[in-house]
Amino acid sequence: MNIQLLLVAVLLQCCFIAALHHPLDPLNPSEINQISLIIKKSHLGTLSNLTFHFVDLEEPEKDDVLKWLSSDKRNGSFPYRRAKVVVRVKDQTHELTVDLATSSITSDHVYTGHGFPPFTFSELLQASRLASSYPPFKNSILKRNLNLSEVTCFPFTIGWFGEIVTKRTLKISCYYRGGTTNVFARPIEGIIMLVDVESMQITKYVDRFTAPIPGAAGTDFQASGQGLNPDSGPCNGTNTRLTVKGHEISWANWAFHVGFNARAGPIISTASIFDSATKMFRRVLYRGHVSETFVPYMDPTTEWYFRTFMDVGEYGFGRAATTLVPLIDCPGNAVYMDGCFAGVDGKPLRIPQVICIFERFKGDVAWRHTETGVPGKVINSGEPEVNLVVRMVATVGNYDYVLDWEFKQSGSIKVGVSLTGVLEMKATSYLHNGVTSEDIYGTFVAKNTIAVRHDHFLTYYLDLDIDGSNNTFIKSKLKTIRATGVKPPTPRKSYWTVVRETIERESEAKIQIGVEAEEFLVVNPNKKTEMGNQVGYRLVTGQPVISLLTEDDYPEVRAAYTKYQLWVSPYDKLERWAAGFYADRSQGDDGIAVWNHRNRPIGNKDIVLWYTVGIHHVPCQEDFPVMPRVYGGFELRPANFFERNPLLKP
Amino acid sequence: MNIQLLLVAVLLQCCFIAALHHPLDPLNPSEINQISLIIKKSHLGTLSNLTFHFVDLEEPEKDDVLKWLSSDKRNGSFPYRRAKVVVRVKDQTHELTVDLATSSITSDHVYTGHGFPPFTFSELLQASRLASSYPPFKNSILKRNLNLSEVTCFPFTIGWFGEIVTKRTLKISCYYRGGTTNVFARPIEGIIMLVDVESMQITKYVDRFTAPIPGAAGTDFQASGQGLNPDSGPCNGTNTRLTVKGHEISWANWAFHVGFNARAGPIISTASIFDSATKMFRRVLYRGHVSETFVPYMDPTTEWYFRTFMDVGEYGFGRAATTLVPLIDCPGNAVYMDGCFAGVDGKPLRIPQVICIFERFKGDVAWRHTETGVPGKVINSGEPEVNLVVRMVATVGNYDYVLDWEFKQSGSIKVGVSLTGVLEMKATSYLHNGVTSEDIYGTFVAKNTIAVRHDHFLTYYLDLDIDGSNNTFIKSKLKTIRATGVKPPTPRKSYWTVVRETIERESEAKIQIGVEAEEFLVVNPNKKTEMGNQVGYRLVTGQPVISLLTEDDYPEVRAAYTKYQLWVSPYDKLERWAAGFYADRSQGDDGIAVWNHRNRPIGNKDIVLWYTVGIHHVPCQEDFPVMPRVYGGFELRPANFFERNPLLKP
Repeated sequence: MNIQLLLVAVLLQCCFIAALHHPLDPLNPSEINQISLIIKKSHLGTLSNLTFHFVDLEEPEKDDVLKWLSSDKRNGSFPYRRAKVVVRVKDQTHELTVDLATSSITSDHVYTGHGFPPFTFSELLQASRLASSYPPFKNSILKRNLNLSEVTCFPFTIGWFGEIVTKRTLKISCYYRGGTTNVFARPIEGIIMLVDVESMQITKYVDRFTAPIPGAAGTDFQASGQGLNPDSGPCNGTNTRLTVKGHEISWANWAFHVGFNARAGPIISTASIFDSATKMFRRVLYRGHVSETFVPYMDPTTEWYFRTFMDVGEYGFGRAATTLVPLIDCPGNAVYMDGCFAGVDGKPLRIPQVICIFERFKGDVAWRHTETGVPGKVINSGEPEVNLVVRMVATVGNYDYVLDWEFKQSGSIKVGVSLTGVLEMKATSYLHNGVTSEDIYGTFVAKNTIAVRHDHFLTYYLDLDIDGSNNTFIKSKLKTIRATGVKPPTPRKSYWTVVRETIERESEAKIQIGVEAEEFLVVNPNKKTEMGNQVGYRLVTGQPVISLLTEDDYPEVRAAYTKYQLWVSPYDKLERWAAGFYADRSQGDDGIAVWNHRNRPIGNKDIVLWYTVGIHHVPCQEDFPVMPRVYGGFELRPANFFERNPLLKP
Repeated sequence: MNIQLLLVAVLLQCCFIAALHHPLDPLNPSEINQISLIIKKSHLGTLSNLTFHFVDLEEPEKDDVLKWLSSDKRNGSFPYRRAKVVVRVKDQTHELTVDLATSSITSDHVYTGHGFPPFTFSELLQASRLASSYPPFKNSILKRNLNLSEVTCFPFTIGWFGEIVTKRTLKISCYYRGGTTNVFARPIEGIIMLVDVESMQITKYVDRFTAPIPGAAGTDFQASGQGLNPDSGPCNGTNTRLTVKGHEISWANWAFHVGFNARAGPIISTASIFDSATKMFRRVLYRGHVSETFVPYMDPTTEWYFRTFMDVGEYGFGRAATTLVPLIDCPGNAVYMDGCFAGVDGKPLRIPQVICIFERFKGDVAWRHTETGVPGKVINSGEPEVNLVVRMVATVGNYDYVLDWEFKQSGSIKVGVSLTGVLEMKATSYLHNGVTSEDIYGTFVAKNTIAVRHDHFLTYYLDLDIDGSNNTFIKSKLKTIRATGVKPPTPRKSYWTVVRETIERESEAKIQIGVEAEEFLVVNPNKKTEMGNQVGYRLVTGQPVISLLTEDDYPEVRAAYTKYQLWVSPYDKLERWAAGFYADRSQGDDGIAVWNHRNRPIGNKDIVLWYTVGIHHVPCQEDFPVMPRVYGGFELRPANFFERNPLLKP
């Protein structure tokens, strides 16, 4: 929900100059420096209070990237290096395009639509510090007999609830440490504090009621030592086939690029797999990353109703990334990558060890068979499954999202998120359950403590390019057939068959999964296997979860796309953020659900899938004081992409 | 589908005498010997052709087992040792109860209902060998210019299609090796061969057409060496906390019993978890195992329609179990158990290393959090997730089922099956796809080769005893509420809440999952946490898959329970096999769907869950010549069972 303020403290000024290896390499520190200098030297620099909210590589043209990648020794012309920059100055949002070759601003446009760019660290930090010097708040703390020096406040984004005019505003919620390090376990309930971010003033303050501060006892979480002895980590895999060159990864039969930005966190690009039959690398995924998250809480009361967070757009997963801890976050055989982004002043900041990459052996077979049909023999064959995992952890305040991209030698890419960390909790005068018949909007997890019900929706941007850019989305329905027509007549009365439905328009490609038996395929309609099957990949979906909010509810208006788990759109590099770019206080007039209304053709086109991993979270006591990992995800699995099982010797 | 005949060859006469540690220990070799002697000495022994089809421990009374387990130093009176035995003699099925203490047959009852007991190895073996000396078949092979010595035949169960009178019958399908070890890749199409098992005669033979034998090239599967270097296996876990005493396992905070029988394969019993708060072991699962499988193929044509297999009841998962191969089937740190069952002559047979048990570290966190809310500090905490896996592999002819029971220190039990092995394939004169518009009932995976569409349904018997025997099943619905009633008024228009529905009768407890947002809980209504929540476990379901066959289709009549993923019944130790005990040629008049009609009360009773893992399999070329692993499963997860996260130090 809210950003880890103090991470600022551990962010280091980037020092190294990374060489460019790949057109999709994230902006490196020197480029970020160059960009901020260009802007500061411009007319904008002369204005006071220039703040940088977004500095990212402007995605080059896909054709140029592919041309360069396939050019001999990669000495083809390198695609342009441009940055998309969003700054705020004089209460205005400027969208700039900066060309690094010419060191010039090639466009400067003032955004006047709804919503605002992500908050900067310093804004969040300043806002969170206002309370401690604000007399009415001091009185509230005094009134509660609390010690101000033990209070920690966090800034919360406030969503949108139909206001005509919106400002950049945060709400401040405060917690009482008083001996625990589990800050979120001890909420100070009953206070509403509104901060106008432009003036950095508290503009509204209400102390409506008090509730007991939940006790500190048992709220700390300490490892039980149930884990591994550290030396068993390194043997998890061997990495013998892993090579990392800048941001480019090659491992076993896979080659791909791992990028990073402040908003999405890890970005997988130009993923191709080696086909031992054709002796060629074949394209699978041009770009994939988390596009948006939506985390609505199910408590409609005055102090809680607004908690309907869009972590990626309002804060940024990359900004919330933690430095990974070896032998906890990643096994001993992991290799690490740093991440860089621009601070509020435009200067580059670095998160050390923000991404880890490791081989993993789970103890499963990749395939096996025992054959006894050959006289006098029992033939056992098989192999262990060894995969490569790319991981980042975003700690957005109380929640920790472990983002995994797992590459299998079978051609599958398993994508998923593990949720852990601390629940958002609410203090109540009720000691425990059964003392009231009214809805408490959550579960009693400790004395005077309710963990509030909520959802998590992580929407993935998946620009699949199956063996080429032009693909088609297929809904493959399993349809029951009455066997009456079978010749010669059969004793069976039914069977199911497969009816492949080619989806030609994006309006037909918003799908609620789980109602019918169907499979979802992305095929290259221009390529067939020797056996005559369309070359394709299958989207193996996870639990079918959609938002349960009513369509007219404001949070749902902003996140309308969460009513369907799957959307398909034609590729447009300007369409990357499922809820729109300006997610803070957005009003639902941008994003995939809106773009979809144009109903563009998607047959035999460069298409993008938008898949949402959804989790309804009814908390239980086991989630206190820290949650055991919950997993949600999906798989991209080859379906007639190869002529045969790629795990076997050709 | 059909049993690995030659396993007989590797089965060893059991030699060791295992001491009894636990009332649910499977019958040991000396007991099996004793049982067969008792029966052979009886009047049945004097009759010719006595064959043993099922010899299993008759489950003692649950109360006696629990009393013994909780008795001081376990010196309480040991529950009775009885065997349930099914023999065939003079074309009759006898159900016997044998008491081991008194060495006597305490009941002998002739079964006259529909269906037959599992086939014995020798029946299957004899049946499969009939063809090679059967003149019409020899002519068919000659006509096809094939070499008889390269032909392998397998017996297939034939299901039931409305016949009034049924006999114990098998159909024989033959394959051409001719240089490949992948027998199933080269079917000899067009021949129907019916075997009457009692007379062991071929009673029907039709050679309706010929199809080309698919080529041998590329059908062999050979490891690519993409796996591990062997020495990385042993480090997967350390097993330091694992102790195995007979069939009793204790590991970390878990204690349970691993049994084995010819029908179900691995059986998990009396699983309890240590609660560090109460310093007591608390009961979770009294017994769990695979109860039945249903594998209908979707080709209604004359030679294929009958393939609607019930592997567990017709053959037996335990009988089809393979000796596990270290470093392929199980990592290097695995420990192994043998399995015993009675052969056709009643003598004990042993499968060495039939079950493996190992600690696994997947490279995931069990939990983690980075806290930045404490001034001047960044606190990282977390632990790697280390689990214990119990595994058996059943190779039922072409398919390999890897059955896993995974115990987590968080209290979760993750149960699942990995499917691999070889597809059932059909030869066709068509060379590849697109040459015909008619339904070929499958996918072209190689020249002249169609892999036929099918389903897998594995139904699990789950006798949960959450903190005691009397439990209640709860359907916990996530219900959208209009926020109009909220006081004071809220800007929100909706939220969802949880409506807990107590299921009182079994007819209300057959559930099609995936239609509504709901959670399924088994609670102990007689116990609450300190926080006032009902003590419980949650069934976290997998993909919502049900059978697509019409209800009036004969295979569906036999497997009617596959129309719902979940059933709940009151505990009755006679009700263990979802499709009924006599699954071969059954007619749907036994099993959970029938028992359910009694609509017994299940509120605050000893209850059993029946959960079906379903997989629709539309084959693709990557599944040829051997399938990459496909996984299906579910999780039993504590939900207010503990006062807090059991992964943490108390």
